[in-house]
Amino acid sequence: MRPIYLDNAATTPLDPAVAEGLAERHRTLYGNPGSSHPIGRAAGRALDEARARLARRLGGQPQQVVFTSGGTESLGLALLGAAGDTPGRVAISAVEHSAVVEAAATLGLRGWQVDIVPVDAAGRVTPEALRAAIGRDTRLIAVMLANNEIGTINDVPALAAEARAGAPRAKIVVDAVQAFGKVPFSVATLGADCVAVTAHKIHGPKGIGALWTRAALRPVLRGGGQEFGLRGGTPSAPLAWALAEAAERMPGGMDAVTALRDRLWAAVRAAVPTARLTGPALDDGRLGNNLHLCIPGLPSEPLLNALAEAGVCASAGSTCSKGRFSRTLSALGHTKDEGAWLRLTPGRLNTADEMDEAARRLGASVAALRAVYD
Amino acid sequence: MRPIYLDNAATTPLDPAVAEGLAERHRTLYGNPGSSHPIGRAAGRALDEARARLARRLGGQPQQVVFTSGGTESLGLALLGAAGDTPGRVAISAVEHSAVVEAAATLGLRGWQVDIVPVDAAGRVTPEALRAAIGRDTRLIAVMLANNEIGTINDVPALAAEARAGAPRAKIVVDAVQAFGKVPFSVATLGADCVAVTAHKIHGPKGIGALWTRAALRPVLRGGGQEFGLRGGTPSAPLAWALAEAAERMPGGMDAVTALRDRLWAAVRAAVPTARLTGPALDDGRLGNNLHLCIPGLPSEPLLNALAEAGVCASAGSTCSKGRFSRTLSALGHTKDEGAWLRLTPGRLNTADEMDEAARRLGASVAALRAVYD
Repeated sequence: MRPIYLDNAATTPLDPAVAEGLAERHRTLYGNPGSSHPIGRAAGRALDEARARLARRLGGQPQQVVFTSGGTESLGLALLGAAGDTPGRVAISAVEHSAVVEAAATLGLRGWQVDIVPVDAAGRVTPEALRAAIGRDTRLIAVMLANNEIGTINDVPALAAEARAGAPRAKIVVDAVQAFGKVPFSVATLGADCVAVTAHKIHGPKGIGALWTRAALRPVLRGGGQEFGLRGGTPSAPLAWALAEAAERMPGGMDAVTALRDRLWAAVRAAVPTARLTGPALDDGRLGNNLHLCIPGLPSEPLLNALAEAGVCASAGSTCSKGRFSRTLSALGHTKDEGAWLRLTPGRLNTADEMDEAARRLGASVAALRAVYD
Repeated sequence: MRPIYLDNAATTPLDPAVAEGLAERHRTLYGNPGSSHPIGRAAGRALDEARARLARRLGGQPQQVVFTSGGTESLGLALLGAAGDTPGRVAISAVEHSAVVEAAATLGLRGWQVDIVPVDAAGRVTPEALRAAIGRDTRLIAVMLANNEIGTINDVPALAAEARAGAPRAKIVVDAVQAFGKVPFSVATLGADCVAVTAHKIHGPKGIGALWTRAALRPVLRGGGQEFGLRGGTPSAPLAWALAEAAERMPGGMDAVTALRDRLWAAVRAAVPTARLTGPALDDGRLGNNLHLCIPGLPSEPLLNALAEAGVCASAGSTCSKGRFSRTLSALGHTKDEGAWLRLTPGRLNTADEMDEAARRLGASVAALRAVYD
């Protein structure tokens, strides 16, 4: 049975053109970008070009783009790097990715007060909730652009304006890992100080991400002064190219993938009429690739296992919070026992036929499990 | 003019078999190793296999191997991760890589006392020097296995024994980035607590390294609990495979490369009779791929530029300390003005003919510069 990959929020298959270009550059651009000889300079030029392309795509300047190993490192660099020596207050939304939660916890150990900003029923941070959670001594604020589990898109410009008013000293860190390439944005108008992105959520390779920053940061990984002194370690020109290339190959919006997702939802509702949508309405500020459901009366894990057996690759939520019930769903007032939680995230390498077939297999899996659990 | 790459200490060209296997795995092993569906599990199994292979090569256990983005991150994780909350004393040798120097400096900002262990005329740390620099309140000791600039190999087991006697609480961190795959060693007998390696110095890709550790560490990059909770971020199964594969494809010793290096030195001496060897004698505890010279009466940069023009890719020393005079050479009592400093590091993808041709081009470059500077 051919697997159907519907877990693009966890990670994505490489765009074949990115895979091909990356393989070629691994052969040709092996130099150390810091070396002054021809082979090093070729790698250095490629790194500069990748930085300029990515900066253009983000709407910023090349010297504001730091290549990292991925989203977690980018977010750690932003939050720990902007913190400085004196503890203060850091505010994070209740549905942030574990990379942000853990960085805030690290600050907590250093004496910072961690304020959690609650979200509304759709998983959204409202300006009012942010206002109530921050103060003039808030020095860091982290709000994601789009949620990794239920796809909720925040109005970051509005939240940034609120943050500037209520916490004028605060640096605003935006996790755009899920949003990049899917939600059109420009750092020029987002209002953030740091924006984290990664390649492997946009059909690029794992092992490369970036942080756009206009804030003065202190490096977390120190070494030979690479990346404007913000990140030690020999940069990979091939991986940097792959991130820039993958970013340019994303459509920017999500019309085609949204159509797949909507087709999937229609087919799922037909196959499993009791399935309930989690999070915001599909057309109301939600990532075009995100479907998240609850199927009442069934436990999550057996359903995921049955789907895996049937070749449907899906998840209950974040891959980065295995074993615990989702923070995001908890923040929305949900509990583990409501039913089987299911995140289905198509990508631009999926086909319409796969949507129909996945819904068919889901229907069969649910029917088989009902026989056991009903 | 075909370039001759003699800067393998800075970084290496990919082994063609590693490049090919990596490209294939970028297409097939794209899953998130944390996902429980078939595509995730395939990536997870590949990650486990790579970890087991690398552990075997290092002489340790799989659960002691943490994949990182490279040597700098591995060393930062070891030193910052082992430090804990209470400041103490950290001892590092005078010729450590900037990744170690900067991590120690970070600890210095947190109240640690940083003790520098001097080296002998060959760049070696002696047990006596180590003994004099440590005490019972020393909690971290960093000594590299082989130096990145002049190739000096330290007797780490002897130093570790000395460290256990003089500083029983100290964790011993070994930078094996240059030594791995070239100097045979096993973590079982090295005496260290943490050993850092990276792929791009052994004909693997940039962007992947590892830390072997038997010490309890605190993660520096926190996220979804990956890598035994020691390193957040989605791991790359293809890159991990490439590190393990590159490690297994290194001969372990360096006989063939040593023969190239010795041939190069003989040819260089014939072409430039005034050239003086820097560091230890070639057959006295020195990396088989390392040649480091001084050509009196000439400045470094014009010679490197002339060599680059002539297609010979070499360096003056560490790529990670551009702009400053080498810490290693300073520690050996050398100064910038002694002459042109030149590091020539062949690798196993070089040929004997390239050694002769590189020496010829070096002779011509020196002669041309002498006409200007004499």
